[in-house]
Amino acid sequence: MNEGAGWLDALCWNADGLIPVIAQEASSGKVLMFAWMNREALARTVATGEAVYWSRSRKRLWRKGEESGNIQKIRAIHADCDSDALLLSIEQAGGIACHTGHQSCFFRRLSGKDGKWEDAEPVLKDPKDIYKGNPES
Amino acid sequence: MNEGAGWLDALCWNADGLIPVIAQEASSGKVLMFAWMNREALARTVATGEAVYWSRSRKRLWRKGEESGNIQKIRAIHADCDSDALLLSIEQAGGIACHTGHQSCFFRRLSGKDGKWEDAEPVLKDPKDIYKGNPES
Repeated sequence: MNEGAGWLDALCWNADGLIPVIAQEASSGKVLMFAWMNREALARTVATGEAVYWSRSRKRLWRKGEESGNIQKIRAIHADCDSDALLLSIEQAGGIACHTGHQSCFFRRLSGKDGKWEDAEPVLKDPKDIYKGNPES
Repeated sequence: MNEGAGWLDALCWNADGLIPVIAQEASSGKVLMFAWMNREALARTVATGEAVYWSRSRKRLWRKGEESGNIQKIRAIHADCDSDALLLSIEQAGGIACHTGHQSCFFRRLSGKDGKWEDAEPVLKDPKDIYKGNPES
């Protein structure tokens, strides 16, 4: 598979050339991350079997786990009915997807009738112990 | 909770005033949909306990299931580490989230070394039998 292939053209890329991506752990069903890919990120993801995203803040390809070692092995890739979102079924190395040291990035839960975002899951590892340099990979 | 509340201000809304939203079935862990909310959609979702999205194509609030009856009851709402994506834990009425009659919108799987999106899940109900009018709710 390559960047010019029809399976890439079949997707709806937004005005910035990106598509939203959900990463779900295959074994637990837990949704771990939400991120974005451009065509090259998706092509590399498929070619390598490991998740590569587009970092909008750093404006570059970002191989998940490149610093932390917490790579994401691809088990399956699904597109939605409108072809404008992707769902990755992955194996999460290290059991931690979030740069904060939580298993999932979705660790804050809305609670209480007055509305409050509360940390609902534990930090499994201190980010200082996960990263030497870049705190987002 | 209301639209001017701090819990809404705590989220990162994009340039169009929207935030991406993942809907996951609480009982099965299956990711059913990806959609968008504006502030009013999220405020109504919280107030009513049922998912209300912003339809970008129709440019209006869209109470999921308003035509089909396949509403989504909210069990929990989580925000991610960057506060720029939401994860809804829901109960899917009718067991069908997609306007195509599939359980999940993510029914097309990338397969084969040459790359091809293939329908990987069954149509549970003919869309004609789901909708009388609007085919997207």
